[in-house]
Amino acid sequence: MNKNKPTLFTSFSPALLHLYDVNNSIVVIIDVLRATSTIAAALYNGARCVIPVDSVTRCIELGKQIDGITAGERDGKIAEGLVHGNSPFEYPKEFIEGKTLVLTTTNGTRLLHMAMEKGAKEIITGSFPNLSTVCNHLAEKKQNVILGCAAWKDRVNMEDILFAGAVISKIKKHFSINCDSSHLAETLYKKARKDLFEFMKKNDASHYHRLMNFGLEKDIRYCLTPDGANVLPQFEDGKLIVK
Amino acid sequence: MNKNKPTLFTSFSPALLHLYDVNNSIVVIIDVLRATSTIAAALYNGARCVIPVDSVTRCIELGKQIDGITAGERDGKIAEGLVHGNSPFEYPKEFIEGKTLVLTTTNGTRLLHMAMEKGAKEIITGSFPNLSTVCNHLAEKKQNVILGCAAWKDRVNMEDILFAGAVISKIKKHFSINCDSSHLAETLYKKARKDLFEFMKKNDASHYHRLMNFGLEKDIRYCLTPDGANVLPQFEDGKLIVK
Repeated sequence: MNKNKPTLFTSFSPALLHLYDVNNSIVVIIDVLRATSTIAAALYNGARCVIPVDSVTRCIELGKQIDGITAGERDGKIAEGLVHGNSPFEYPKEFIEGKTLVLTTTNGTRLLHMAMEKGAKEIITGSFPNLSTVCNHLAEKKQNVILGCAAWKDRVNMEDILFAGAVISKIKKHFSINCDSSHLAETLYKKARKDLFEFMKKNDASHYHRLMNFGLEKDIRYCLTPDGANVLPQFEDGKLIVK
Repeated sequence: MNKNKPTLFTSFSPALLHLYDVNNSIVVIIDVLRATSTIAAALYNGARCVIPVDSVTRCIELGKQIDGITAGERDGKIAEGLVHGNSPFEYPKEFIEGKTLVLTTTNGTRLLHMAMEKGAKEIITGSFPNLSTVCNHLAEKKQNVILGCAAWKDRVNMEDILFAGAVISKIKKHFSINCDSSHLAETLYKKARKDLFEFMKKNDASHYHRLMNFGLEKDIRYCLTPDGANVLPQFEDGKLIVK
């Protein structure tokens, strides 16, 4: 372990985030299925910004106020009062370019606000579609990093940990990693990486089943594919933007 | 998924225990290095009971009161005022038979008391030395199960998850498992089971390093070896006993 290297920790659930030194770190918000994947896709396709909000009411309110696209789902359907859903395929360039997306998600938004309240040095969002950009950014910044899994109502989920493992396997040489969660994530990712979709299926991942039941195989496959939307969403003044 | 089967969940950290339906479940307290392994060893070797307590002060107090063996470590050394340490090798039959062990541990005891306060149906302790007995008991009881990892100051650790995975790989057919943590634990265990010690070493497990630094390789090997002390420690009236 090189003491001059910055540290890297992985938090498997928002309920564990307080264990880490948030205010001295870059926090990567990870909500693979599907919030942070859709955020990457929308920004990659030219959205001006994405504003994550925690409720449908707030989404409607803010959408009106700033003339933004309101989006969000509850139980696999577009939430009442909103116009779009959570799928990355709803935000092609022709539609989203130059627009503001107001997106309501529960787990990812909550974690993002927690990181903000705890004074994170910087907050970015990560997903397989923007894997390489996130990794390059973290390697260049030489700051302490916390990979924050959004999980599902605080319960650990498979896909967020797999993404953490993918990041670690790419950039670990730049960091001092004294964190069993990180080592476990990397081990799992190495076992899964040949075919992430098959791994999720074979290992009965809860979100795999949930989304397959909604007919969303295409979404799952997109969200598990690296580098389809390589942008760096950074959270500033309540908005996710690409600088 | 068979709805008639009882459920099984794995809680990776005491900070996640509240997410599960504790008062409708058997909770297995898992603190592989070394509390629950040492508890199994002491009871297997004939200790009358083990009383887990959360502080050195309480350990000394109670030890005097009931004429018990006081034991516990802080930073790898026997804590001041106590007579024995946390190693399973300190409790052979010749020494411990018929005696009461008052053991202070931090993570395991805290989780055990949490499970008690939340009204667990039954609390038992699990470790590799009593793996088969724990598995047989859970399979026979046909009740909902929570595998509770004691972790390290709420931070996830590798060995407790590996033990959860070992249990799951043995008894999963008896349970309905809709829990990514459990599936992850099983996957990790399958990858590790050929040589758990090597797996811990190769994957930089934090407790592996900590205990190796104290010269405790023998302890680690014992604590990762299945079925060396097949008893069922059950928590009743503040004591762990074998019925």
